[in-house]
Amino acid sequence: MVDLKDLIREVPDFPKPGILFYDITTLLKDPVGLHWAVDSLANHYIGRVIDRVVGIEARGFIFAPMVAYRLNAGFVPVRKPKKLPAETARVEYSLEYGKDALEIHRDAIGEGNQVLIIDDLLATGGTAAAVAQLVESLGGKVAGMGFLIELEFLKGRDKISQYDLHSILKY
Amino acid sequence: MVDLKDLIREVPDFPKPGILFYDITTLLKDPVGLHWAVDSLANHYIGRVIDRVVGIEARGFIFAPMVAYRLNAGFVPVRKPKKLPAETARVEYSLEYGKDALEIHRDAIGEGNQVLIIDDLLATGGTAAAVAQLVESLGGKVAGMGFLIELEFLKGRDKISQYDLHSILKY
Repeated sequence: MVDLKDLIREVPDFPKPGILFYDITTLLKDPVGLHWAVDSLANHYIGRVIDRVVGIEARGFIFAPMVAYRLNAGFVPVRKPKKLPAETARVEYSLEYGKDALEIHRDAIGEGNQVLIIDDLLATGGTAAAVAQLVESLGGKVAGMGFLIELEFLKGRDKISQYDLHSILKY
Repeated sequence: MVDLKDLIREVPDFPKPGILFYDITTLLKDPVGLHWAVDSLANHYIGRVIDRVVGIEARGFIFAPMVAYRLNAGFVPVRKPKKLPAETARVEYSLEYGKDALEIHRDAIGEGNQVLIIDDLLATGGTAAAVAQLVESLGGKVAGMGFLIELEFLKGRDKISQYDLHSILKY
């Protein structure tokens, strides 16, 4: 049996000293690991109606489309400002230092759509909470949030506890 | 029958005046369109051994992983400098104004691996040629290049004519 954690490379001091980075590229390049990770994320929602799966630029563009494909849903990108060409909704959120903003196309999600938010990493939960706000501002329902990796010590789960959360690998 | 071109939104003057932008987000959010696009890209290679599918940050992270999933291959990201945490190979290439660089993990591709390069757009071919160089520098064989959209008037195909090229929608 594959242990997915064996496929994650731990890189100390990246991107800066004191940070232990969980590198998923070693999992992604492994066909079995890739398939298992996608199916572990997607199978949690099988049997439920999912209209859209949202992914966040840039690394979040990797898993969210595969989960959308697996669930026969559509994929919606959330991008950094000024990247999306049509009319957008925008959310600002706080980072460790300063602020950042994300955008979504206004016509990407319809009233009452069941929307899944999928990302590779749940850290502080700030990004996921901001994206949920975007989805709800367009009339969508957040049907769930799925993460490949959850850094439990950062307690991101507390910030988004009103949603159905699902994570595969906990550290 | 779905005409995939009907699902692509044409946005004039984006990102700057005089450019007609082909917006794929309207296709991505449509479950049937998404499935059809991925399968059209992937089915061209069915029956051949494909070890890795390479995608380029950021928009290229959308289709390449889905094609990898569909073909039971691994996915390898090519990223902007300093984003990848382990040892990388690097290529520089020319843009309309100035230069840009891309990186790949050195251990992402093995000697003799059959590698597919998948992107949403073939424009001038400069990025695809640079990525092929990266793949070959690691000992990989470029088994093919697949694009959702080919802008034929830019003649990108001429720059990468030594490879097996496959594009779905031509403009």
